[in-house]
Amino acid sequence: MDIMEGILTRRSIRRFTGEVISQERLETILRAGFAAPSAHNSRPCHFVVLKDKTTLEKITTFHPYAKMLPQAGCGIVVCGNNEAQKLEGFMVADCAAAIENMLLAANGLGLGSVWCGLHPVAELTEGMKELLNLPENITPVGLVVVGHTDEKKGSWNRYDEEKIHHDKW
Amino acid sequence: MDIMEGILTRRSIRRFTGEVISQERLETILRAGFAAPSAHNSRPCHFVVLKDKTTLEKITTFHPYAKMLPQAGCGIVVCGNNEAQKLEGFMVADCAAAIENMLLAANGLGLGSVWCGLHPVAELTEGMKELLNLPENITPVGLVVVGHTDEKKGSWNRYDEEKIHHDKW
Repeated sequence: MDIMEGILTRRSIRRFTGEVISQERLETILRAGFAAPSAHNSRPCHFVVLKDKTTLEKITTFHPYAKMLPQAGCGIVVCGNNEAQKLEGFMVADCAAAIENMLLAANGLGLGSVWCGLHPVAELTEGMKELLNLPENITPVGLVVVGHTDEKKGSWNRYDEEKIHHDKW
Repeated sequence: MDIMEGILTRRSIRRFTGEVISQERLETILRAGFAAPSAHNSRPCHFVVLKDKTTLEKITTFHPYAKMLPQAGCGIVVCGNNEAQKLEGFMVADCAAAIENMLLAANGLGLGSVWCGLHPVAELTEGMKELLNLPENITPVGLVVVGHTDEKKGSWNRYDEEKIHHDKW
């Protein structure tokens, strides 16, 4: 799939067939995550791959927008190391870039995915920290739910001239 | 260019020929930015396109890592509307996803680009707010410098098994 096509056809997919993605495809998606840039090349991102059914079910008890996770069969919690990147704003941006790369890679593989926010919602980050036993210096920034899609969505033009400014506001 | 190839070959480019990118290519890059997902679909991102030579030069007086901006000839300041998305962490993540899409689109077009961080460094965000006359509710999150590349960089494998965890830390 061409890169612009991949960017323009990526949509949030929340219905899945139940078939878990292969290890090979998972690795391709993780490779895309690692390829994202990071501020001052501090590379603060870690990836917690979730496949255990009990873990997937537990997440739905505290994350109101992750109900589709067990049916997808796979989640990737993207975490930032606050010691590798001390500026929280940069750390969050680095993790977000990695997440976007993974969503695009999934789309390129013909898979569906959706980004469920975590940071800065304390209820969600605390729930994740406890469940996954994350160290103190590790912040869960976002959850990528990925699987075989069970819905069709076309591309969606969100181009908005009113949000483009020239040389000043 | 294939989407995975585009993701894996994207590198930070800081040397440019001086030829400014065409309007058509700029629009393609902006279209990629708009296509990024946003938390709860709040779409908080605005894009300030910089081409004015005086503006480009002024930015180099307060941003130590944007010295290449005048030679590139074009910058895009990605801003978040704090009223559209009140949670700063989500707003920053949304802008970062738009930035990553634009870096990938530039790579797909054969152009070079580099992401210069702004938020949360007060010196940089204040400098940009004053120069671009940004409203109080608008935060400049990052600057994309884009132009015709004058350096060759191969892909760079940053895959790191030690940063992959399974079901818990």
